[in-house]
Amino acid sequence: MKAKVTVMLKQGVLDPQGEAVRHALGALGFDGVEGVRQGKVIELDLADGTSEATVTEMCEKLLANTVIESYRIEID
Amino acid sequence: MKAKVTVMLKQGVLDPQGEAVRHALGALGFDGVEGVRQGKVIELDLADGTSEATVTEMCEKLLANTVIESYRIEID
Repeated sequence: MKAKVTVMLKQGVLDPQGEAVRHALGALGFDGVEGVRQGKVIELDLADGTSEATVTEMCEKLLANTVIESYRIEID
Repeated sequence: MKAKVTVMLKQGVLDPQGEAVRHALGALGFDGVEGVRQGKVIELDLADGTSEATVTEMCEKLLANTVIESYRIEID
């Protein structure tokens, strides 16, 4: 089974990577880019039967820094 | 309008970040993690009426390195 975890910085946490992308897009002539947030996506190939609770535990323990990041889990 | 771009390393391209996550999960006692790929997700807040073609151009020019990365665009 596959699981996809998306980790984003929480609202209000400064996102310098996203800001850099926003500036770069402007410099390339793309107008109307009002905001950019950059996060990471982790695709996990797991043994069949792994529960969503296990994936949540992976997020809490390793994949996300829950002080500043939020995460979303999608199970296929 | 919002657009979400997901950028992943192409199949066959070594993904050391993903490998590091896989090892770390194993070390934490999570069994059955067969593979991990890590990519990035970029959430764009764009002026209304921006076309998907424009977002594709952003990917080709800046957001993805198309030699080694593939990208996927979702428009909300």
